Amino acid sequence: MRVGILGTGMVGATLGSKLIQLGHEVKMGSRSASNEHAVQWAKENGGHASAGTFADAAVFGEIVFNCTAGVASLAAITSAGSSNLKGKILVDVANPLDFSKGMPPTLTVCNTDSLGEQIQKAFPSVRVVKALNTMNCKVMVEPTLVGGEHDVFVCGNDPAAKAKVREVLTAFGWKSIIDLGDISAARGMEMLLPVWLRLMGQFQTANFNFKIAR
Amino acid sequence: MRVGILGTGMVGATLGSKLIQLGHEVKMGSRSASNEHAVQWAKENGGHASAGTFADAAVFGEIVFNCTAGVASLAAITSAGSSNLKGKILVDVANPLDFSKGMPPTLTVCNTDSLGEQIQKAFPSVRVVKALNTMNCKVMVEPTLVGGEHDVFVCGNDPAAKAKVREVLTAFGWKSIIDLGDISAARGMEMLLPVWLRLMGQFQTANFNFKIAR
Repeated sequence: MRVGILGTGMVGATLGSKLIQLGHEVKMGSRSASNEHAVQWAKENGGHASAGTFADAAVFGEIVFNCTAGVASLAAITSAGSSNLKGKILVDVANPLDFSKGMPPTLTVCNTDSLGEQIQKAFPSVRVVKALNTMNCKVMVEPTLVGGEHDVFVCGNDPAAKAKVREVLTAFGWKSIIDLGDISAARGMEMLLPVWLRLMGQFQTANFNFKIAR
Repeated sequence: MRVGILGTGMVGATLGSKLIQLGHEVKMGSRSASNEHAVQWAKENGGHASAGTFADAAVFGEIVFNCTAGVASLAAITSAGSSNLKGKILVDVANPLDFSKGMPPTLTVCNTDSLGEQIQKAFPSVRVVKALNTMNCKVMVEPTLVGGEHDVFVCGNDPAAKAKVREVLTAFGWKSIIDLGDISAARGMEMLLPVWLRLMGQFQTANFNFKIAR
């Protein structure tokens, strides 16, 4: 599978490397094709890894992961190009965190809207699936870092897109994938961040995750 | 122990009945001393149960539970009387849910503030502890309704008040109580509601709860 990654931070690099390990080809996109983080990541990840612009990554990917900072996501996807993403699955991993007013960050959108919904609304021909935003990136690709059973949430309007993302998550090692319904469930998923951040402060580690006990 | 309950809904009745079963005396308060739900509840719960106004419940209780609807909580506590609550523990179980715009409800306050913080700010002499708002009321008093291990969160500015609430939660059957820090953690606790409501829709039951896997 060919995968596009939007964003060159820890989340994009971690997901990209895992996808390479699983045998996929990955192009990491950013504002500039010569972004040093992306070029370095491509160098370290072998022949199946490459770097390019957001548009390059969108053209390349059969499936595309939005790993940009939430506040920059709409601009990044615009730059990637609606026509380059048309009909494709966009896995939105981002959180709309605003660090500009200090710690803890607040959300730039919540309660009556969400980043996931804003992306779906702005790019109606893209099949947006929100997933993986409720945990640290190391846990995303290695669920066994956290003890016991725990869950990853997905939501989105397109059942076939969610089924495909479920396959990817299963390949990452996920055993419990909870489908929360349509993309408006992104509100609840993104609104888990404040408690997640508190827990990280209390536990002094990011190796934990939500589990819904039943 | 003498306990005041503010609110006559399912949450107040369920907590009140449990506290009676544990041997405490409980007065359920509402706007009117003759509120039919409260009078009926008192009748059904024996000699240790009584009904009165919000102020009666506040005077009566050594510890007071806010079980009113979130949108009505500040008015109810004002009516209970700051001087009647002075120095006492107020366990805030409420969620600031706004059902006026249809389903799903949104939060009337979130992200940069919370109901728990609003109460603490409005009543600085009261020792507010947020707890139990992240689950169904039956689960609050009978954690074994949900399988496996799962958690109850607490937050508040007063360590001694949190220790006392911890005792009450332990008596309810809670084994895992996670202290999230000061009252500003009420933001995160209240912001769990949207995902909780989604999960209830997906599972078609309220017998589930958050567990933080580590």
